[in-house]
Parts: sequence; C-alpha cells; structure tokens
Amino acid sequence: MSEADSQLLLARPIDVANIGVDLFADELEHQRVHVSRVDWRPPAEDTEDALGRLALQAADIARANDLALERIEDAKPLLVGVGVAGQLLPGMSERTLLHAGPPITWPDMSGPLRGAIIGAALYEGLATDPDDAERQARAGAFEFSPCHERGAVGPMAGVVSASMPMCIVENETHGNRAYCTFNEGLGKVLRYGANDAEVLDRLAWIRDVLARVFARALERLGSPIDLRSMTAQALQMGDEGHNRNRAGTSLLLRELLPVLLELDEPSSDVVAAARFIAGNDHFYLNLTMPAAKASADAAAGVERSSIVVAMARNGTEFGIRLSGTGGRWFTGPSGMIDGLYLPGYGPEDANRDIGDSTITETVGLGGFAMAASPAIVRFVGGRAEDALEATRAMYDISWGESRSYQIPALGFRGTPVGIDCREVVHTGLLPFVNTGIAHREPGVGQIGAGLVEPPMEAFVKGVRALAECV
Amino acid sequence: MSEADSQLLLARPIDVANIGVDLFADELEHQRVHVSRVDWRPPAEDTEDALGRLALQAADIARANDLALERIEDAKPLLVGVGVAGQLLPGMSERTLLHAGPPITWPDMSGPLRGAIIGAALYEGLATDPDDAERQARAGAFEFSPCHERGAVGPMAGVVSASMPMCIVENETHGNRAYCTFNEGLGKVLRYGANDAEVLDRLAWIRDVLARVFARALERLGSPIDLRSMTAQALQMGDEGHNRNRAGTSLLLRELLPVLLELDEPSSDVVAAARFIAGNDHFYLNLTMPAAKASADAAAGVERSSIVVAMARNGTEFGIRLSGTGGRWFTGPSGMIDGLYLPGYGPEDANRDIGDSTITETVGLGGFAMAASPAIVRFVGGRAEDALEATRAMYDISWGESRSYQIPALGFRGTPVGIDCREVVHTGLLPFVNTGIAHREPGVGQIGAGLVEPPMEAFVKGVRALAECV
Repeated sequence: MSEADSQLLLARPIDVANIGVDLFADELEHQRVHVSRVDWRPPAEDTEDALGRLALQAADIARANDLALERIEDAKPLLVGVGVAGQLLPGMSERTLLHAGPPITWPDMSGPLRGAIIGAALYEGLATDPDDAERQARAGAFEFSPCHERGAVGPMAGVVSASMPMCIVENETHGNRAYCTFNEGLGKVLRYGANDAEVLDRLAWIRDVLARVFARALERLGSPIDLRSMTAQALQMGDEGHNRNRAGTSLLLRELLPVLLELDEPSSDVVAAARFIAGNDHFYLNLTMPAAKASADAAAGVERSSIVVAMARNGTEFGIRLSGTGGRWFTGPSGMIDGLYLPGYGPEDANRDIGDSTITETVGLGGFAMAASPAIVRFVGGRAEDALEATRAMYDISWGESRSYQIPALGFRGTPVGIDCREVVHTGLLPFVNTGIAHREPGVGQIGAGLVEPPMEAFVKGVRALAECV
Repeated sequence: MSEADSQLLLARPIDVANIGVDLFADELEHQRVHVSRVDWRPPAEDTEDALGRLALQAADIARANDLALERIEDAKPLLVGVGVAGQLLPGMSERTLLHAGPPITWPDMSGPLRGAIIGAALYEGLATDPDDAERQARAGAFEFSPCHERGAVGPMAGVVSASMPMCIVENETHGNRAYCTFNEGLGKVLRYGANDAEVLDRLAWIRDVLARVFARALERLGSPIDLRSMTAQALQMGDEGHNRNRAGTSLLLRELLPVLLELDEPSSDVVAAARFIAGNDHFYLNLTMPAAKASADAAAGVERSSIVVAMARNGTEFGIRLSGTGGRWFTGPSGMIDGLYLPGYGPEDANRDIGDSTITETVGLGGFAMAASPAIVRFVGGRAEDALEATRAMYDISWGESRSYQIPALGFRGTPVGIDCREVVHTGLLPFVNTGIAHREPGVGQIGAGLVEPPMEAFVKGVRALAECV
C-alpha cells in the first residue's frame, strides 16, 4: 500500500474493513475490534493515477465530505403541499417531457421509457394517438430533460409533463425544494411504460380528484409533514424506504385520517382518494424520493467533495453526480436486475434498470437500509441474513452513518450514508440497489423486483473528473 | 437420563436443545445440526415423580398436545362487532366486577387493582365516592371474578363492569367467542388503577361515542376483520403483539379509514373517535388479546394435554391453566418486572406483574415473538440481540411453531407456540413475558415496561395436577 493510500484510509472514521486475506481479520476480531469483511476486488482499472491524486488531497476532501454529509444529515424535508409541474418546475413548456435518469435522446430510449413518453403526450393532448406521439418524438417535437435537472424525481420511467400534479417537499434547513408526481399504484401504469385508456383515465383522476383532496388535507393539517421523522419511524417498522413502503404509507394515512374526516370536499371524492392511497403500499415512495432529493441537493456543489449526490437510471444508462463536480453526469450502461419475477415472466422479459428511485440509496435508504427490512427479501429475493449483510457492506463505501435512520436489528446503528465515489472505485464494492423490474416492452408494467449493481464505469469517470478539479 | 426422560424428549418434534455441557453441542453443530444452547437449570424440586409419571404417557400426551396445538393454530379469530359486557358475558350482575388474573379477594388485591375496582364502582354509580366504594368492597358488596372465567380478558387490572362496551372476537373455526374492553390509552387510566374524574369521563366517552362509532364502522366494513392475518402482518412490521402495537394500530386504521369517511354518524364524533385511535399506539392490544383468548380457549379441555392455555396475573398472583386440567388455576406469587422506568420512577414504585395480556405469549406472541420486534428493546430494555435470543430460547419449551406468525429476521421461521408445562419444569426455563409496569399505588398509572419471569411454582403445580389425571 502506498503512503498516499494509507493516508486515504486513515482519513476515514470507520471500523476496520478487511479486504482479502482473512487471517488479519480473524486476529483483529480476536482482539474484539469490529471488522467488516468484504470481498476483495482490485481497484477499477486505470484509476490509480486519479486515486493517487485524490489521496494527496485527502484532508481537504475529508473536510469537504464532512460538510456535504452534514448537509444531507441536517436537511429537514417537509411535505408542504401540492402544485402543478408547469408552474413549479423551471423551464417547463407544454411540450417538455421530463424523464428519469441522466439525459437521453429518443433513439436510445428503452421500451418502458418510450411507452411513458407516448402516454404523457396523449395525456397532455399533444398527440392524437400513440403512432402520432411516436412520430413527433422521433421528429424532435418534444423537449426531453432529466427530472433531476428540474428539481424533480420520478420512479421508473419517471415521465413528468406540464399539467401533472406534483407533491412539494421543502427542505426547511437549506430552503431548497424537490418535486414528485403521485404514485399510480401497481400493474398497468405510466411509470412502467403503459399508456392505454385505463392508464390515462387514472392520470386524469389523479389530477382532478386525488391531488385536490390530498392538497386540501395537507392544508387542513396546519403544519407540514416531517418526512425524515416519518421515514425514520417506518424503518423501525420494516420498511427500507425504497421497495417496501407499507409502514410509511400506513403512517401517512394515520396522520391524514382525522383531517380527511373533516374535509369540506365531496364525500365521494374523499372516499375515493382514501381508498386509492390505502390500496397502494407504494404511495409513500413518491414522498420518500423527493425528500431524499431535497436532502441530497443540499449537499451538491461542495468543492472537492467525493460524495455522490444523485444516482439515477433512464433504462439505458445509469448516471451519478458528485457533490464536487457540479451538474455533470457520469454514466455507464444500466444493469440487468437479479431478482424475483411475477408468474409467467423471466429475465428475458426484463428491461434494464430504470428510475430515479436510487435517490433513496443516495441518502442511506433502500439497499443501504435493507437490514431494517428483512421482510424485503420476500419481494427482491435472497435470505433475511442477506438484508443484514447488504447494509453492513455499505458502511465500507459510505462517509458516515445516519443520525435519524436507525436499524433496530443492528443495535440502532445509523444506516450508511454518503457514498464516497473514491471508495467505490478503491474497494470495487458497488452500491446495493433494490428496485422494481419493468417489462422491456412498453405497456406491460412491473414484472418483478430485485437487486442490481450500478456500472463501475460511472464511478470511475466520476473519480477521474474529481481528480482533475482538486 | 432415564429411559422415561429420553422418551419424553424423543416425542417432541424439535431441533436439538443442548442443556449444560457445550462439547456435545459443538460436535452437533460441526455436523450442521441446529442446536439451541440453553442455560441448564435443574428440574424444579420435587417434580421427578410427576415428570416420571407423565413420561410414561409421553405418546398419549404428544397426541393430545398435537390436537391442542392444532386448535390454537386453526383458530381464526375475527373481530365481528361491539356489545355490552352485561349482555354478552355470562352471569354479569350490576354488582359484578371482573378482574385480570386468577381469582382473588379484596384483602389480597394490590393497589392498582383496588384502584380500578373503585373506579369501576364509581363508573357504574354503585358508590358515591372512593371511600364508599372501598367500604363496600371490604364488606363484600361486589362479586369479583376473573375475566378469564367469563370469556373475557383485560390488560393490567383488567376490570370489567356491566355497562362497559366490549369488542367481540369470534373464532370462526371453532365457534367460540372472546371479549375485551377498549384500550384507554396511556397515562392516567383505569387499567393502571387511576379513578379520578378524568378517567371516569373518558370511560363514559368510550361507552357513549367511541364504541358506537367503532361498531358502526365494523358494520359498514361488511365483513369482519381477520385478526390473525392483521397481527401476522404487524409482526412483519416490527410489532410483537403485546407491548409494541404501532403497526397493528396503523393497519387497523388503514382498514377502517374508508368506512369511517362514509359513516352516517355526527362528524364530530367520528373525528374524535379517529383521533383517539390514531393517538394511541396500544389500541390494537385490546384486539390482539381477545383474539389470543379465542384461540387458546379452543385448545382447552383436551384430556392429557400439557399445553398452557392461559397465563394471567392479578397483581398478587400469577396463574396458569392447562389444556388437560380443566378450569383449575395453578398459581404462584406474581413477579417483579425488570425493565425501563419513566423519569422519576424506580423499582421501589413498581407493582408486581399484573394483567391478562400474557394471553398473547400463550399463543406465540409477545415475549415469544420478540425477535420480530428488535425496536421493542427501546421500551422494555436490553439489546436488539436479546430480542432474537428471547424468541430462540422459547422454542425449547414450546410444542410447535406458528404457521401464521412468522419472524423475518429468523428466515420467516414461525414463532414458538404452545407452551409445554412439562418442559418448563424439566428445563427450568420460564416463559418470557414482556409487560407494562404499574405504580403500586392506585391512581398513578404506568411507570415503565420490562421483562418478567412467571413463578416456577405455578408450572410445578400444573405438572403435578396433570400427573394425577393421566
């Protein structure tokens, strides 16, 4: 190990990570030192120069990372209300269609993203039928942009158009906001690329009824909902904040129940909205995501910081942004998901990894909080112990531990938070992501869920870019 | 080990329990046999004759226990409605006051139970003031009887009087019913022996408003609530079904939300009822308890069975009933609770263990399901690993494993269920009970929560009585 390398390791306030030969770990454990054993993988190829250059700045980077992590941790994301995308998000024309992940053009889009783009065009009345929408898309009649670049996040295809209602999350500490659509439920839904009449009718109902009832309920509550606190509670109740949202959705409903009862809106609308939320365990995901985005955005732009502030996939590419490298995306091919399939489907039907929901992993939830959610393995595969192990492994690539997101089964240890891009490249250990699986053809919907590895390439590019600006 | 002893052990379909010397366990584990290591304690004194006699009937007892366990497991407790104690429970006069635990007379009652008796007398208009109620109690003017002997269960003091509203739980499989009052919330409440105007006003409101709204909501649901299924879900969400009921209460509210919105009752009543339930994490306990009672009662009366079908405490004595010994109670002194106290209180303020809530442990919940609820240690003390260990230990004294109550952290293994009285005496391992701590003086309320060991004496008496009738 070079002196630069040891400097890098010493600058990190972690327990011992044993990489490779077990004898050393055995001896340390014998001395009651906590050792995390990780599969050793060599640092990604051709990164030694970049890592070396960063190692020379380890102390400065450590200070920058402390600041970035402090911002993530101090963020207080509050659900403050509901608005309309066209009025809330910057630069939204009526022909703007936002999507999940890093930037992408029509020819490169996968089936589910194309399906969702077509659906949104129909929903906005921009096209007469799917063929017309596709022709226009090909001809460049729509403006495409990542949600992330307009302050929003979207699960799966993540398509947002001007008239869609958005939940508004405000980070009280730093004053920034983030936005997300309402969760449509499972099955045939826009975010999995479905776009038939059933899907469009539901979107219209969400716009005309659900958004209004939800907005009035939030107003009547009198004070905004503290999403960090609610998610922290949900983690004590078996959620991990990405693919298991049953507790979060239940806690949200419990909070809203009294005000829903007092709402001065047509009773049939209130009942329909309440039934819709109560019938959809994932409703809360679309609040966790903007809460995570509002927290991670607060950590962006810290010079020299190697902390990842966004991870997102468009179904073709996976991209990350680092705190210290501004708005640049570093990308690699989106991965195939290893998981459990619904009856009748298999890996050959699966689309590549897609969606902005990895913003949850970015702030210490999802794959990083799996130890809080042993029941998640029924959904994504594996054994309960794997859920514990996933979280344990993530401490090795994370800058700190969450003060608010605690894991009962690990003695209330905070979840690992603040992915250090250098450590991903250095250890070869990629962030754990648990996610839904979309059918590769538009219009089918979800066919499973599982675990996926991001491409190392994205992190290597990030490390090299950071090395050039320190 | 005598031949009778080995027959006893062989008749049980369990993994290896290693009692005492570790060498044997080490060797078995080396051979990949699952071994539970238990602290060895000698069998309770003077029980060898009784255990020996029972061992000679081991095969018959095994068949009886299989049947009793099958009945607990097959029971399908449904929340079917709300009624009034005086009309529902057998032999309730207007001067009947039921209490938790085994039979007890006024002179032997502890502070909280006396306080609750006084409160119930005032609530029923049987006394003009607390002194008058106490005089009458001393003079024998009230009929005291255990809840358990009238088909009911009550948390803590568990006092039930004629005009109290009761939740009705029906075991669809076997047709029997069990009843429980509504949970009053925390703080100054009747079940902890408080009896001032605030307590009595709340009881009147529960009778006049909450019970009506809750009853109408259940009617409007159209089909009864399957409590086994709801509790099983709650166990996947960090509840253990006795002292942590946040998930159960949240799931119940989620189920009731749509019908509450449509209720044809004064809106202010519905809102007040909803706020009351939403504000009380323990609301669901008073449904888990009668569900457990309805299940355990179905297993009572199986000749020769050594399975415990009730465990209950009156604040002075702890009593059990066995399936094979009819309605007899076997008792010993109620234990002191080892736990966490609210600020300003300590062990010197604590009453002895009290309440019928140990009916949850009787069917594989509570202390037996603690591994599902690592967060419970924040409430009852200890470390997260202790919660896992508590459940693991209980397999050694249980006849089987629950099909419905599964523990994610143990790879979805069913909770230990069906306490075998013989094994408790034989191994010296007492059932784990987690419970609230009442102040020893009436009127103060809950001052903590913790773990308590039942008295071995009760199990010894049970084993001797069973040995006499096989």
